[in-house]
Amino acid sequence: MSEVAAEVLPGRAMAVLSGPMFADEVARGLPAAATIAAADERSAAFIAKSLRTRNLKLYTSDDVLGAQLGGAVKNVLAIASGITAGLELGENSRAALITRGLAEMARLGLAKGARAETLMGLSGAGDLMLTCFSAKSRNTSLGMELARGRTLDEVLGERRSVSEGVFTAEALVSLSRRLGIDMPITAAVHRILSGKHTPGEAMEDLLARPLRREWT
Amino acid sequence: MSEVAAEVLPGRAMAVLSGPMFADEVARGLPAAATIAAADERSAAFIAKSLRTRNLKLYTSDDVLGAQLGGAVKNVLAIASGITAGLELGENSRAALITRGLAEMARLGLAKGARAETLMGLSGAGDLMLTCFSAKSRNTSLGMELARGRTLDEVLGERRSVSEGVFTAEALVSLSRRLGIDMPITAAVHRILSGKHTPGEAMEDLLARPLRREWT
Repeated sequence: MSEVAAEVLPGRAMAVLSGPMFADEVARGLPAAATIAAADERSAAFIAKSLRTRNLKLYTSDDVLGAQLGGAVKNVLAIASGITAGLELGENSRAALITRGLAEMARLGLAKGARAETLMGLSGAGDLMLTCFSAKSRNTSLGMELARGRTLDEVLGERRSVSEGVFTAEALVSLSRRLGIDMPITAAVHRILSGKHTPGEAMEDLLARPLRREWT
Repeated sequence: MSEVAAEVLPGRAMAVLSGPMFADEVARGLPAAATIAAADERSAAFIAKSLRTRNLKLYTSDDVLGAQLGGAVKNVLAIASGITAGLELGENSRAALITRGLAEMARLGLAKGARAETLMGLSGAGDLMLTCFSAKSRNTSLGMELARGRTLDEVLGERRSVSEGVFTAEALVSLSRRLGIDMPITAAVHRILSGKHTPGEAMEDLLARPLRREWT
């Protein structure tokens, strides 16, 4: 988004707000926390001071790219999380999948120049876990429907809201190929969305991957 | 644990198994993933090959300390997570609290010589999110009871199982003071458990902390 914004509004200062926030809860004044990132961290601090309320905690960062990356990748991982729930694979498998998804997010982020700590923070792990564990998430609920045997067209045809992860999955698969990064969960979601695999087949595939180091 | 084990069984090779695993689900054969860490990673690979089943994925690591740290700290953070749920503060605040808790876990881990990636992995973020989001966790359910106004003695008096976080909170507060590490959520849980603050007061305190960088 910041690249698009810089094209449309060249030369303007820009900041990114991202974190685990369902808008309806923020509007109701319930506590929340998020990251404000700007290339010049003094801008981030100025905006954080201006927007901060008693119940909205804002943390500053200068990692503009990292702060945007989590919010995009998490939508794809939320579809996968919904699939594990819909297939009734248990809470362990869901947490494992989200954590291995966080590893994919981190590999992509580091390759693009983001900082690991940003991906561990509110805009990364925070937004990821909120989205992946909540039935309120449109992407998670899409995954649940797919796991129950409905087709993508059926589910999207009934919806007036956008399930962003459908578009992001394709973009991430191309990007990861170009950068030579292993993103098996993202690739599995893409195979399901494009009808190449059923949710069950894609999960079997992920489980069959060989023994490896947790981080390489 | 590995320090205690080395005292009791000097000179033996040792490995640590840790990850997001409720034992009942593993016993039922549902998919799960975890980390096997050993100082000599070939031992870890040998054990991983021996224990691995079709539905239990094991990843190897040589970060023995890091693989143990998440499992201890997460019990304290799960009490805090249960408190946000019991106080009905919303899903945003729960995700924010867990993420800021992960930052505390990372600060402590790095100070003790663990690797950041381990804390981002299955034994860290993975185990943390499983425990903090599940009503099955004894520590999370303890936090929920405390938030509803019951006392620690009342809740523990009814239980035959252990809520480990109660003991760990005190140990972590001493350790963080000794190492000079900021662990505000852990400290808040300790103040609640020792009766110095109500859950509501402790949450107010956390929200009132001044503007800061997300990572320093």
